[in-house]
Amino acid sequence: MTPMTYTTQRNKLTDVSRTLAKVALGELPADLVITNGTLVNVHSGELIPHMDVAISSGRIAYIGQAQHTIGEQTKVIDAAGKYMTPGLLDGHMHVESTMLSVTEFAKAGLAKGTTAIFMDPHEIANVFGAEGVRLMHEEGQGLPLKVFTTFPSCVPATSDLEDAGASLEVADIEAGLQWDNVSGLGEVMNFPGVVFGDPKMCGEIAATIASGKAVTGHFPSEDDRMLQAYLASGVTSDHETVTREQGLHKVRMGMHLMIREGSAWHDVKEVIKIVTEDKVKTANISLVTDDVSPQTLVEKGHLNHVVRRAIEEGVDPVTAIEMATINVARYFRLEQDLGSIAPGKCADIVLIDDLQKMEPSTVITDGTVIYEAGQLTVEFPTFVYPEHIRNSMHVKRALTPEDFRLASRSTVETTTVNVISIIENSARTAKMTAALPIRTGIIQPDIAQDIVRLACIDRHHGSGDISLAFAHGFQVKSGAVASTVAHDSHNLLVMGINEDDMAFAANELIRLGGGTIVVENGVVLAQVPLTIAGLMSEKTLPEVVAEVAQLDQAWKHIGCNINAPFMTFSLIALPVIPEIRISNRGLVDVTQFKLVDVELV
Amino acid sequence: MTPMTYTTQRNKLTDVSRTLAKVALGELPADLVITNGTLVNVHSGELIPHMDVAISSGRIAYIGQAQHTIGEQTKVIDAAGKYMTPGLLDGHMHVESTMLSVTEFAKAGLAKGTTAIFMDPHEIANVFGAEGVRLMHEEGQGLPLKVFTTFPSCVPATSDLEDAGASLEVADIEAGLQWDNVSGLGEVMNFPGVVFGDPKMCGEIAATIASGKAVTGHFPSEDDRMLQAYLASGVTSDHETVTREQGLHKVRMGMHLMIREGSAWHDVKEVIKIVTEDKVKTANISLVTDDVSPQTLVEKGHLNHVVRRAIEEGVDPVTAIEMATINVARYFRLEQDLGSIAPGKCADIVLIDDLQKMEPSTVITDGTVIYEAGQLTVEFPTFVYPEHIRNSMHVKRALTPEDFRLASRSTVETTTVNVISIIENSARTAKMTAALPIRTGIIQPDIAQDIVRLACIDRHHGSGDISLAFAHGFQVKSGAVASTVAHDSHNLLVMGINEDDMAFAANELIRLGGGTIVVENGVVLAQVPLTIAGLMSEKTLPEVVAEVAQLDQAWKHIGCNINAPFMTFSLIALPVIPEIRISNRGLVDVTQFKLVDVELV
Repeated sequence: MTPMTYTTQRNKLTDVSRTLAKVALGELPADLVITNGTLVNVHSGELIPHMDVAISSGRIAYIGQAQHTIGEQTKVIDAAGKYMTPGLLDGHMHVESTMLSVTEFAKAGLAKGTTAIFMDPHEIANVFGAEGVRLMHEEGQGLPLKVFTTFPSCVPATSDLEDAGASLEVADIEAGLQWDNVSGLGEVMNFPGVVFGDPKMCGEIAATIASGKAVTGHFPSEDDRMLQAYLASGVTSDHETVTREQGLHKVRMGMHLMIREGSAWHDVKEVIKIVTEDKVKTANISLVTDDVSPQTLVEKGHLNHVVRRAIEEGVDPVTAIEMATINVARYFRLEQDLGSIAPGKCADIVLIDDLQKMEPSTVITDGTVIYEAGQLTVEFPTFVYPEHIRNSMHVKRALTPEDFRLASRSTVETTTVNVISIIENSARTAKMTAALPIRTGIIQPDIAQDIVRLACIDRHHGSGDISLAFAHGFQVKSGAVASTVAHDSHNLLVMGINEDDMAFAANELIRLGGGTIVVENGVVLAQVPLTIAGLMSEKTLPEVVAEVAQLDQAWKHIGCNINAPFMTFSLIALPVIPEIRISNRGLVDVTQFKLVDVELV
Repeated sequence: MTPMTYTTQRNKLTDVSRTLAKVALGELPADLVITNGTLVNVHSGELIPHMDVAISSGRIAYIGQAQHTIGEQTKVIDAAGKYMTPGLLDGHMHVESTMLSVTEFAKAGLAKGTTAIFMDPHEIANVFGAEGVRLMHEEGQGLPLKVFTTFPSCVPATSDLEDAGASLEVADIEAGLQWDNVSGLGEVMNFPGVVFGDPKMCGEIAATIASGKAVTGHFPSEDDRMLQAYLASGVTSDHETVTREQGLHKVRMGMHLMIREGSAWHDVKEVIKIVTEDKVKTANISLVTDDVSPQTLVEKGHLNHVVRRAIEEGVDPVTAIEMATINVARYFRLEQDLGSIAPGKCADIVLIDDLQKMEPSTVITDGTVIYEAGQLTVEFPTFVYPEHIRNSMHVKRALTPEDFRLASRSTVETTTVNVISIIENSARTAKMTAALPIRTGIIQPDIAQDIVRLACIDRHHGSGDISLAFAHGFQVKSGAVASTVAHDSHNLLVMGINEDDMAFAANELIRLGGGTIVVENGVVLAQVPLTIAGLMSEKTLPEVVAEVAQLDQAWKHIGCNINAPFMTFSLIALPVIPEIRISNRGLVDVTQFKLVDVELV
């Protein structure tokens, strides 16, 4: 049987409430009845066996013993032996991190039981501004996955230290907040700006509060006074908490705490102790993914994995699911439509055999079966990004080896330089200095010291800007790497030993239209073309996973054995996390928020 | 020291967040710091000792060790040995039931720790329509008590069986929802109308949902299918639950359950078992008063009494307070401003010596001390209702004894009549029949059978409409009673043995401008003038309590020894509660929703 192409069955409650009422009363048959399952009731905190759920017009009409709603045309799904849970809601994630289009991500997320996401399309916003946000948001609107957008708040991340592809101003946010299904302001990363009264930050927050939507936060600091100033400025949530102590403090302060388990951030183990040990009330806590890689999607899952992790740490399964459903819905003020299996709500229901495993057997959204027996049951609509979005490489000219040679001011044989020293499994870097040899006036990398060349090239404005620096800790011994995933401005980042390979990698990646690539001696070892804005693939999850696996091998081949080098590399240009970074404008000392010279002399 | 006249210090969060942030950071001194109290933290569910709360611009700036916020001008309150709780929020109440103006109620409520109410000015709406609602709402806006209004949804209660003073249509609700601090639709009592698609009910609900506000409910039935149809129609709460079983069911169905403890309804004892025994999650449960009499305000308190009752039944005090604070705020989507002691929120804080007793020692709203050492510390603003609101008695002419004589169609000495039989301590009535004597063609009451005359007179339109009937169970043996508190239409209700006293009572009450009165043999035994719409007094709480105490005595004097006869009497004209009622149009059989003859022959 050929799957049907999906068209949305999403109805406003008040448009169909007459029908729902009639179904509940037994005056009209239901479209679909799920029978005899165990209801995961996130309101009461119970598992209730032998329940039916009657569905009509995409919404839930009746729960209990629903024989009276079954007519001749009613589809019946037997859920005996299964749990019926509300669809999972991811309160904070970046689809770009999956390297997939929203459509391809939706397939993967739905298969794992995620039925709604609150995405912050922050990465594409740095490349294409409000247009990029609008396109990803629009792509999300026709899917069986409910895609809500929190409008990116901090684009660019810094205003004086780098050049992103675009910027978003208060007026952009005000306009975006009017779109259907924009449910808040994206993570307000510039917390010093908020706390110290930056007009753009304050304007964005005021506009969001005036619209009745959520101001989502990002507060990695442990400074208590800053935290309270941040809260008093109107931000209401955080997903950057990594310690039990900070988690407890934030809950006490009334902050909506989003506990994160992404591919790189594994916060559940520690932070969930506020539930399992401190026994705080859970109504204002949710579980989120933030960033998940394509591999994680395949190997571990999506939000279901975060729920599973919470259960593994000792959280009662109903409470773990509560934190991934109703609490998220209530935070975003969508509890009349989402977050539980209750009369009137969208029929977003996941059948699960084993709550410990949290692997869906059937996924239903808006009353339509989307996934069952291990596969998607509908054809997803196709969304094609406009040509200019798929053509985001605006580099002035082809790169040459000379572009990667940093001339020394020194007249002797060595010179002392500032070096970006990476820290494995951390988003932070350390500022170090090193003595590097000079050859024919050019500062050389030094494999013995594990120091390689680094370049950041403007790819948005065709300005020809190239900044050069040195990085320590990648263990790269040959070849070169280039990437357009380079948070947050997503310029063209190149790293390597020899200038020929660096130019080759950069030029090949420009030719591909963006992505990430590893080369050696003029040969491409692996590449992941990310043709949507240089950030997302146009391929399917299995294809991307295969490409990324090759990429991982290629990193190893050129000598890099650290964990997740792609992630560490992609963060090396993010000038908001200490201590030292590269941008297209030069080397950034993040502790001082200023550009500094590479060479000390 | 003469108290200052209160002027509101209420600031929008985003208008003062810069100041709050500076206070939190120690850059500006706080206006007020409460030191060293035990924080009742409704987010985490804890009692946290030795906490300070710093307040500026009417909002909370910092919580913890707040010495750095204390400047020379900062007022400091030592809370050692005291609990600091968020101000209590009453999610559903009718101010009219207190017989007080909103201003006078505010004084009483604040002294008991209530800092915000969500009032449904349903009674005045039946007399003066949207104008009445607007006036009570406006009266509430200048007070230190935060007065939110849920716009009355069912005015009149029925359309064909009675004549109220006014009606509210969908357009009135749509207009009212635009007013500041109108936070939802008032209890949707016409649940059959909702369930069966009455256009007015559905229109009101759709308008409310479109405005993002709460559709509050009223669902006294135990019909499960009706309940789910009601929920699927968009109503989200209920406060009419009297059994544990129904309470548990409603929570499971995702309904926000308001557990009520009013003067006449004592639901906590039974319904709170869902918390103490069924151990449901409490996030979607709140505590409300619905209707409290002036005596209850004085003798037991307001919402603090409901919290105390929950604690007496075994609820953990922090959870009991949670159900009267943050849960209410979240239900009405006001959690950014209200419901907990947290940075940014309105500084509505109650100091309490003993959580079991729940008696405030100090009450602060918007950072101003309103009550301490047993008395209010500010002068409340004066609100004067327009003359026509204080002149609501539109009866066609003075009543005569003849008006109260019901002629029989029978030609023999007795006749059989339908009688309204009251049930002590219940809002319901029973339909009974009785044989009554006839004298000179007039059907007579019969003290031996405990059956008295009853009349309902149009007082809104000057139509001259009078309907006559008989009531059983009041034990009245002499005199007469009259009242303009006659739910929901609030026509002029008169009851008595002899026609002379009935006419006298009615005429005296018309002269007073409404209220309630007991007379005997041409002498007024007691009266409570309710000159605001015939529903509320212009006097203070102590004065009203003294008047009501006299009234209670007078009821006893004329023979009535049942509990709360005034309440039972005031409900005898409410044609939406089974089984039989009187309206200005006649005797109403509520089981059939139609007018019926008094005499059976």
